[in-house]
Amino acid sequence: MLPESFSLPDAARRPPDSTRFVLVNTSHPGNVGATARAMKVMGFSDLVLVAPRFRDVLSQEETVAMASGAADILVRARIVETLPEALEGVQVACATAMTPRDFGPPTHAPRDFLPTLAVRPDAVAFVFGSERYGLSNEDVYRCHHCLSIPTRAEYGSLNLSQAVQLLAYEWRQALGGFDVLPRTADPVRASVDAVQGTLGHWQEALVHLGFLDPEAPRKLMPRLNQLLNRAELTQEEVHILRGIARMVLQATPADRRGGK
Amino acid sequence: MLPESFSLPDAARRPPDSTRFVLVNTSHPGNVGATARAMKVMGFSDLVLVAPRFRDVLSQEETVAMASGAADILVRARIVETLPEALEGVQVACATAMTPRDFGPPTHAPRDFLPTLAVRPDAVAFVFGSERYGLSNEDVYRCHHCLSIPTRAEYGSLNLSQAVQLLAYEWRQALGGFDVLPRTADPVRASVDAVQGTLGHWQEALVHLGFLDPEAPRKLMPRLNQLLNRAELTQEEVHILRGIARMVLQATPADRRGGK
Repeated sequence: MLPESFSLPDAARRPPDSTRFVLVNTSHPGNVGATARAMKVMGFSDLVLVAPRFRDVLSQEETVAMASGAADILVRARIVETLPEALEGVQVACATAMTPRDFGPPTHAPRDFLPTLAVRPDAVAFVFGSERYGLSNEDVYRCHHCLSIPTRAEYGSLNLSQAVQLLAYEWRQALGGFDVLPRTADPVRASVDAVQGTLGHWQEALVHLGFLDPEAPRKLMPRLNQLLNRAELTQEEVHILRGIARMVLQATPADRRGGK
Repeated sequence: MLPESFSLPDAARRPPDSTRFVLVNTSHPGNVGATARAMKVMGFSDLVLVAPRFRDVLSQEETVAMASGAADILVRARIVETLPEALEGVQVACATAMTPRDFGPPTHAPRDFLPTLAVRPDAVAFVFGSERYGLSNEDVYRCHHCLSIPTRAEYGSLNLSQAVQLLAYEWRQALGGFDVLPRTADPVRASVDAVQGTLGHWQEALVHLGFLDPEAPRKLMPRLNQLLNRAELTQEEVHILRGIARMVLQATPADRRGGK
């Protein structure tokens, strides 16, 4: 057997805090708070701000309000002066850049590229520029890759914290993702025979009502059969539909009322 | 040949405006503006608000500021009183809901489910509840599917406009996506022989320098070969590296200086 350090790295074996989000020259406190929240819902916690517009941005009211429960990310966030300081300890830096440059790292769509990064054990940073100007060329040159979210060609600029949310989501998906918890209980589907029993009951009721003429059935029952199959009835719904059929069979149809 | 209406639907043949985003009881103008921007970057334009907190939300300053260039979406947005009005003309309604319910439509992860919806010609609505309370049970019951963004179990609630951004992105990806435009020019890679020529030039320079001992080469050249292969040199970089080698060969190494 190979010693641990020789085995292949995989997403599950990445150090838990090997992802860093770096915001460069951010102006709006709301974007810093929304970034913290976006990171936390996707299970990330290492936030570094490079020369933000407001030095006290981490404790400003709007920042904390937008972080909404992710204040722990703000408390542990660091402020530094330059991108190289923010990237200390990072092995792969990914820039997000919308503006074309004549030179720089290769551009990838996050969904295509991130899975190839996720299987490596490297500490990764995602670097975001300012709301108005994006990243400087100098900062882009320090990065290994450039990520670009595929958008409309004519109007493609995402709000900063929404770009963070998308990348945090794509990176989490690439790392294996979280489970989706069912928001409703899983229904128990009715068996084929229970559905056929219901159809038989309805057929009887529809004949009783005078809606179905046994002499000229016009494919009514096969149509209802298809409808019920497509609806994927639950056992409870079988009870409801049979209850309706039972009440119909107890009623006196209009054309027989008054001894007609 | 089959007439047009009998051919199979596919994503490319969907009517261009067959996607609607519906915000129910939204409180924060910033979220309405950020929703417009999130929709527009992903190429969607049909926004309906159901009973927003502020009746004039579409023209409020914060809304327009957050929409940032997507004001045309706000101008065409409609305000209605109830979800059924908002869903007029829609064939499939997808609720977004984080709170578990004891009853309701099945829950799906967007990435798994949306591709199955994208190949159908149906007009689709994505329905989002209020910032504080999400969707009411009654509104969820009107929907055909429930979408849930996979997040951390302990802290899973996205900001409203970030949830809109993620779903707009996933839906656009399911519909075929936009292209990612290269942000830098595609580099022309150097040919294998150009790289080998560079290595030969460096080998000569390193021997000249006294760094490489031809009697005990210690795999230095194969190591540099691997480094250069991994770096995927461009033709321009070959010129730079050969230029360095040339200057080294013109210099007098330290241990020969002073006639030593």
